Amino acid sequence: MKPVKVSTRGATSPASPIRKLVPLAVKAKESGKTVHMLNIGQPDLTTPQPMWDAVLKNPPAVLAYSPSEGFPELRRAMARYYEKLDIRIGADQIIITTGASEALVFAVASIADPGDEILIPEPLYANYIGFSHMLGVKVVPIPTRPEDGYHLPPREVWEEKISPRTRAAIVCNPGNPTGTVYRPDELEMVLGIAKDHGLFVVADEVYREFCFDGERHRSFMNYRDTEDRVILIDSISKRFSACGARIGAVSTTNREAYEACHHFSQARLSPPTLGQLMAVDAFAFDDDYYAELAGAYVKRRDAVMEELSKMPGVLCEVPKGAFYAMAKLPVDDSDTFAAWMLSDFSHEGETTFVAPGGGFYATPGAGKQEVRIAYVFEADVMRRAMEVLGKGLEAYPGRIG
Amino acid sequence: MKPVKVSTRGATSPASPIRKLVPLAVKAKESGKTVHMLNIGQPDLTTPQPMWDAVLKNPPAVLAYSPSEGFPELRRAMARYYEKLDIRIGADQIIITTGASEALVFAVASIADPGDEILIPEPLYANYIGFSHMLGVKVVPIPTRPEDGYHLPPREVWEEKISPRTRAAIVCNPGNPTGTVYRPDELEMVLGIAKDHGLFVVADEVYREFCFDGERHRSFMNYRDTEDRVILIDSISKRFSACGARIGAVSTTNREAYEACHHFSQARLSPPTLGQLMAVDAFAFDDDYYAELAGAYVKRRDAVMEELSKMPGVLCEVPKGAFYAMAKLPVDDSDTFAAWMLSDFSHEGETTFVAPGGGFYATPGAGKQEVRIAYVFEADVMRRAMEVLGKGLEAYPGRIG
Repeated sequence: MKPVKVSTRGATSPASPIRKLVPLAVKAKESGKTVHMLNIGQPDLTTPQPMWDAVLKNPPAVLAYSPSEGFPELRRAMARYYEKLDIRIGADQIIITTGASEALVFAVASIADPGDEILIPEPLYANYIGFSHMLGVKVVPIPTRPEDGYHLPPREVWEEKISPRTRAAIVCNPGNPTGTVYRPDELEMVLGIAKDHGLFVVADEVYREFCFDGERHRSFMNYRDTEDRVILIDSISKRFSACGARIGAVSTTNREAYEACHHFSQARLSPPTLGQLMAVDAFAFDDDYYAELAGAYVKRRDAVMEELSKMPGVLCEVPKGAFYAMAKLPVDDSDTFAAWMLSDFSHEGETTFVAPGGGFYATPGAGKQEVRIAYVFEADVMRRAMEVLGKGLEAYPGRIG
Repeated sequence: MKPVKVSTRGATSPASPIRKLVPLAVKAKESGKTVHMLNIGQPDLTTPQPMWDAVLKNPPAVLAYSPSEGFPELRRAMARYYEKLDIRIGADQIIITTGASEALVFAVASIADPGDEILIPEPLYANYIGFSHMLGVKVVPIPTRPEDGYHLPPREVWEEKISPRTRAAIVCNPGNPTGTVYRPDELEMVLGIAKDHGLFVVADEVYREFCFDGERHRSFMNYRDTEDRVILIDSISKRFSACGARIGAVSTTNREAYEACHHFSQARLSPPTLGQLMAVDAFAFDDDYYAELAGAYVKRRDAVMEELSKMPGVLCEVPKGAFYAMAKLPVDDSDTFAAWMLSDFSHEGETTFVAPGGGFYATPGAGKQEVRIAYVFEADVMRRAMEVLGKGLEAYPGRIG
C-alpha cells in the first residue's frame, strides 16, 4: 500500500493564534476555573432584538438557498448604508459572503495567483495569513512600530517591498489587532502607491464605527479617482454583535474583480439565509445606535488601559478604534505565557485568556512579547480580567526585565 | 496611473452552470412567466419542525461564534449517525463546515497544492471545478457513458490518467448530476487504485439516503483498511431540506488531513451558529424519516421519467439515487436551448429552467446536448414542468435529429 501525503499547504498551514489555545481554555473551565476569554473578538452585547424578530416572527417554511450574491433586499440595504458614508457602491456591486472571512478569500483569489504577493502592515489580522496560505499567495509584511501607534511607515518602506509579483495591499482600518485608525494622509499614501504600481487595495473596514476620542473614520472608498482599484470588505459580526450569523460582504466597482468574486460565490451556492434575513433592517440603524456602541467600547478600553498602566513592564499605546489592544508584556515568550495562564495559573479561581502576539506577525520570530487583548466585556469584567492578568505576570516563571 | 489586473484564476473562473442563467429566469418571472426551477437542487419539502423549534423556542441572546470545528453537540450527533451506518468516525474527527461547499474546499486544499491533479468521474458536480480552480488544482476527468448508466470505467482508464501530480479522486455517490449509485465492486476498484498509487479518496455522500428501487448505499468509509485515506464530505442541505442553513462537514481519520482542515477552519472562525443548532436533533431522525424522504423523491423521479420517455429524441437513463437526471436532448447546444427557454419561450405562461450540461464536464465541448434536471418538486409539478419542456423542444429553432 502506497502511503498518502497531505499537501504542502496543508502540512504547513498555520494554526490561528486566536483559536489554537482554546483546548487549554476548555480544560481550564472543566477544572472549575473562570476563564476571561479576551482571545477572541466575541462581544457580550446582545444581538439587537429587531434582528431576532426578523427570523423569529415569520420563519420561512423551507430554509432555502439565497441567490449566490445574497438577497436583493440585503444588498440594497447595504448600498443605502454605504451611501450615507459617501461610499459609492451600488447594490449590484455587492456580494454577500459567509462573514468577512469568505469575503477576504474571494478578494485575494480574484486579484492574486499562486506565488503572487500581497503587502500587509504588520502586526496584522492573523487570518490574512491563513487565507493567503490556503490560496498559495505570499504575505509580505510592512513593519509598523508600537511607538508610532502602529501608524504606517513612509512610502519608501512600502516601495522597498514591492516586486513584480506584488498585486495588492490589504489594510484593516481601524486596525485589528492594533486599534489604529489611519489618518487621511496615510490612506492617500497607500492609494498613491497603488496607483503608481498597479495594485489593488483590499480595504477591511469591519470596525468602521468603532472610533474613539473624536477620531473620524475615512474609507478608502471615499476617494473618487481610485474607486475602481479598491475592494471593500465588510461584516455584520461586530457592528451588530452577530458573529455567529456569518454574514459579510465583498464589494467593488471594478467590474472584472466583481465578476471573479461572483463566480467564486456561485461555486459555494449561497451565504447563510437566516443571517441575511437578520441583517436587512440592521443596516438602517441610525447614528444613535453607533454612538451608543462606541460609547460602550470606550468605557471598556479605558478600564483596560487604566489597569495595564499599573503593571510594571507592560507597554500599550491607547488604541483609537476597533476593540483590541496590542500590549507588550515582560515575558520571555507570549505563546508560553498565554498557555501557562490557562494551564498552570489561577487567581481566586480565575484566569485570563489572551491571544499570543506571534501569530499576528508574518515576520518569523516577531511579536514574541506581545499579546492581543479583546476588550469585549463590560468595564468591570475587563478590569477584573486585567487584575488577574497582572497577578499572572507577577507569578509567571518566564518573567523578564 | 498604472492599471490593475485581476488574477488569472479570477479572470478564468468558470460561471456555475446551475446559477449562470438565473438573471434570465428573474427576467422571465418579471415578465409574468411561471418558471419551473429545475436548475438547482432546492427541494420544496418543508424543513422539519423540530429543526425550527431548536432555534425558535429558545434563541440565544448573543448570536456568537461557535468553535471553529463546530459545536461539540453537533459533532457528537453526527458521530452517532455515522456509527449506525458502520462508518467509524469519532466526534473529534469531524469538522462542521459552511455547507459541503466549504468542506470540499478544505478537503482539496489539504491534499493538493497548486498544479496538482485530482481525478473525477465525468459528468461531475460542476462546483468541483470551481473550487479546484480557485485553489489552483487541476481537475482530470474520468469519462463515463450514459449507456453504462454513468457507472465507472475499468481500472485501466483511470490509470491512464494518473500522473506524478495526481493526489486524489473525488467520487460523488449517489452521483450529482447523474443519480448513479455505485456498486461495491466500483468502490473497491477506486480504493484499490488509491492504495496502489498513494491517493486520497474524497467521498461526497451528501445524497446517501436518496437511493431508489432497492439500491443500497455503501460508503467509502465502510472499508476498514483504507479508512485513513478517505475524506468524507457531508451536508444537511438535502437530507433535511435545509439548504439555506449552510451546514456541512468534512471528516477523516487521517490525522494530518484533519489537522490541515482544522487549521483552515480556524482561519474562517466558525460555521453558522443557527444552522448548527437546527442540525443537532435532525441527525437522530429514524429510518422512517428517510424512507418517507426516498419515497417522496421516487414518485417525482417516476413522473419525470414517464414524461421524458414520451419525447422523441430524448435519452435518459433511470437514475437510481440523488434527485437529478442527466438527459440528452435533440438540440444543437444545451446552453443556447436553456437560455432560449427562459428568454424566448413559454407555454400557457410557463417555462422550465434546466441546467445546461456543458458545465458538468471538465472536458471542453462535452455535454453540449445534455441538461441536468433536478426533480425537487411534487410529481404533478414535475409532470407539468416536463410537459412544458417537451413543448419547448418542439418549438426550439435549434432542434436537431
